[in-house]
Amino acid sequence: MDIPKDNFPEWYNEVIERAKLVDKRYPVKGMHVWLPYGWKLMRNIDEYFRKIFTEHNHEEVYFPLLVPETDFKKEGEHIRGLENEVYWVTHGGATPLDVKLVLRPTSETAMYPLFSLWIRTHADLPLRIFQIVNVFRYETKQTRTFIRVREVHFFESHTAHATAEESEEQIRENIEIWKKVAKKLALPYVLVKKADWDKFPGAHYSIGAETIMPSGRTLQIATIHQYLQNFAKAYDIKYLKEDGTHDYVHQTTFGMSERLVGAIVGIHGDNRGLVIPPEIAPIQIVIVPIIMKEKERILEEAKKIEDELKPYYRVYLDDRDNYTPGYKFYEWELKGVPLRLEIGPRDLENNQVVLVRRDTFEKINIGREEYMEKIGELLKEIQENLLRRAEKEMREKIKKFENLEEVKEHKGIAVVNWCGSEECGHKIEELTDKKIIGIPQEKRKGICAICGKETDIVAYVAKPY
Amino acid sequence: MDIPKDNFPEWYNEVIERAKLVDKRYPVKGMHVWLPYGWKLMRNIDEYFRKIFTEHNHEEVYFPLLVPETDFKKEGEHIRGLENEVYWVTHGGATPLDVKLVLRPTSETAMYPLFSLWIRTHADLPLRIFQIVNVFRYETKQTRTFIRVREVHFFESHTAHATAEESEEQIRENIEIWKKVAKKLALPYVLVKKADWDKFPGAHYSIGAETIMPSGRTLQIATIHQYLQNFAKAYDIKYLKEDGTHDYVHQTTFGMSERLVGAIVGIHGDNRGLVIPPEIAPIQIVIVPIIMKEKERILEEAKKIEDELKPYYRVYLDDRDNYTPGYKFYEWELKGVPLRLEIGPRDLENNQVVLVRRDTFEKINIGREEYMEKIGELLKEIQENLLRRAEKEMREKIKKFENLEEVKEHKGIAVVNWCGSEECGHKIEELTDKKIIGIPQEKRKGICAICGKETDIVAYVAKPY
Repeated sequence: MDIPKDNFPEWYNEVIERAKLVDKRYPVKGMHVWLPYGWKLMRNIDEYFRKIFTEHNHEEVYFPLLVPETDFKKEGEHIRGLENEVYWVTHGGATPLDVKLVLRPTSETAMYPLFSLWIRTHADLPLRIFQIVNVFRYETKQTRTFIRVREVHFFESHTAHATAEESEEQIRENIEIWKKVAKKLALPYVLVKKADWDKFPGAHYSIGAETIMPSGRTLQIATIHQYLQNFAKAYDIKYLKEDGTHDYVHQTTFGMSERLVGAIVGIHGDNRGLVIPPEIAPIQIVIVPIIMKEKERILEEAKKIEDELKPYYRVYLDDRDNYTPGYKFYEWELKGVPLRLEIGPRDLENNQVVLVRRDTFEKINIGREEYMEKIGELLKEIQENLLRRAEKEMREKIKKFENLEEVKEHKGIAVVNWCGSEECGHKIEELTDKKIIGIPQEKRKGICAICGKETDIVAYVAKPY
Repeated sequence: MDIPKDNFPEWYNEVIERAKLVDKRYPVKGMHVWLPYGWKLMRNIDEYFRKIFTEHNHEEVYFPLLVPETDFKKEGEHIRGLENEVYWVTHGGATPLDVKLVLRPTSETAMYPLFSLWIRTHADLPLRIFQIVNVFRYETKQTRTFIRVREVHFFESHTAHATAEESEEQIRENIEIWKKVAKKLALPYVLVKKADWDKFPGAHYSIGAETIMPSGRTLQIATIHQYLQNFAKAYDIKYLKEDGTHDYVHQTTFGMSERLVGAIVGIHGDNRGLVIPPEIAPIQIVIVPIIMKEKERILEEAKKIEDELKPYYRVYLDDRDNYTPGYKFYEWELKGVPLRLEIGPRDLENNQVVLVRRDTFEKINIGREEYMEKIGELLKEIQENLLRRAEKEMREKIKKFENLEEVKEHKGIAVVNWCGSEECGHKIEELTDKKIIGIPQEKRKGICAICGKETDIVAYVAKPY
């Protein structure tokens, strides 16, 4: 890479371009073309969503992209929060539409009119569905690949429950699911409850999973929302209770997006390029034959190794003729393949292969009898090491502060005591030129940084993307 | 089912609703909600697309949904053919957009500006990509689930080649791929070259795969287009040849859609509901325990069978307590599961299971030692039988005619001699109140049904959906 990771914003753009995750030259601002390698990474994450949410009793559906204005406008807070950032379809051909259509910014308003038809009695509950779709936001702020875009690759699950307790139970389950997703992607995070003025439009409360990027700015990579009956009342989603009376359902949602790819790029990458966690890497092992002599025999052996690995791993044999091994090392390091397997004349002689870790660059000579087992161990170790390393880096960026002036300069999350009032909250934001990204579960006794009142609430203060 | 298949249009709507493939009550005309069972079927087809096109050296990408008006309008014929049926995005929030955006009706105009950046020299060719996305058409005709909708689940591959010969070679390869897809879905078809006035806007020529629905109307279920240099010239997609000169690339595309699901529903279904080909069925085998006595032991055995089958097949154990076996039979027949496995007290005693084929309703008693092998055989037989049966039905609906009056009444494809002129073509269409859906490869000597000129060209004349 030409740009060191210390210069994070430029490094981030360069690595995305050079590793060919997306092509940003698409002629609409904030919309990019997913290239094969980037799309494979995104799809591996999608497939994990499918697996984990199916295990947790969700079913996959697909709702239409376009939402009629009339349905879109049913929940007051929701529409007020979103109406400035939705795209409007106004014409079919040259004909103005009778009812304007919104490109879904998220799918509550598409789904819930149907929920009110699907849900009749308590026997229809709980209802748990998810979909993986693209959503659209007319972003007016500066766009940034994966992080702030106008067409967003999106995961959303929606559930409906008989009681508030059951929807709270779902929130806890969603947090358990999130922990598995974060582990799969080797991403460290903190969970926070959003401040009231910052929750999802229409939600009763919102929980965010926040990570810290190398720039010190925070990135919200998952959100879990408790709606209770807010939307059910707007969309008339009622069920017949066992006692013969009717009640509105209680709803939750869970959203994640291509931001996860942005987090993987930013958090694990280094001066040589991407470092992709083995569990979701498009290619887990690249085989590079070192050909100086005995070309035929080495290629044959490399092919044999590929065949041995293929049933168990995502493996790629780079047998291109017109590139040197050095060039190939460079390219696959840039693309973040977790493990490189080299095989050359000396390895052939010694009945061994060479394994090189992408995370530590450690080189391991290993006999052909044991190499399969070793690869399994190494991929596991790399996955764990990436998470451990990232976790440590993130923790170092979370610091307690008493003085708001110092918070201004801090790169990361500042932990600040706060009385919890909206007024003091906004003042903290003003004085630090940052945002309260949320309130963690941890308590700490102290005095509010603004009004001096005794409190055990802390706010996480940071500059979010 | 309440409606017999003889009443095809109503049967079609009923079976889709009752088998829960989609929910048509979404409040935008021509857009429906894919329900879990229908979406699994569609996704199984998508996964096969991924597999087969990857084997044929295509890479998967994702291009944005929205195409700027300026790019959309570059190829004259293309835009004239489509401009009346595209949705226009005109506003972001309350702000009118500087450049209006089209919801892709297909992705030529999104992709080819990027192709002109990607392709530099002959070494960049051939380029072969595909994507699986939803596309949008503002249909003014009557909509019909899967067949004519406004949001279409779509597969599209796009290739670029150095020479016309190479793009012709790709067309032949696309036909080979299509044959595999059709076999996988057990769909019979005929291949026709579209009449000049009916080809895809901007294409040099178009090939359609057409099948015949039980109504006698034809359904185009795949299209393969030869563009040659038409789009390359409009989008300036040039490459450097080995001799140092530049030339425009030669392009082809291949499109398929959710119409394939419509064809599966219509062609294989019967009076009891859907019949889904085993290769793509969401559930291949449903296990129904017949519980009269020994509930525990039977359920245990059913679970054991499920575990035995799971590694090899998509299997579902229907162990619901509150439904009779009869109700379950009815429901899974409606949903078209190819094979039912029953296990009751007598089967337990005799160490056997009962297998029931969905296509023929044949009942087979088979010992527990052989049942696994038998299931493999039966699924293969069902797959083949569905195709054979459908193929026979379709062939019976293709008939030769001399008299255009008789063509009018024919339910299916009428084979009519035609001189090939546009004038006579349109007259044939007028007089039969049908369309020339295309020209097959087969020749037949005769005289043009309009002008009487000697010709060996035949037209396929039918009423297409």
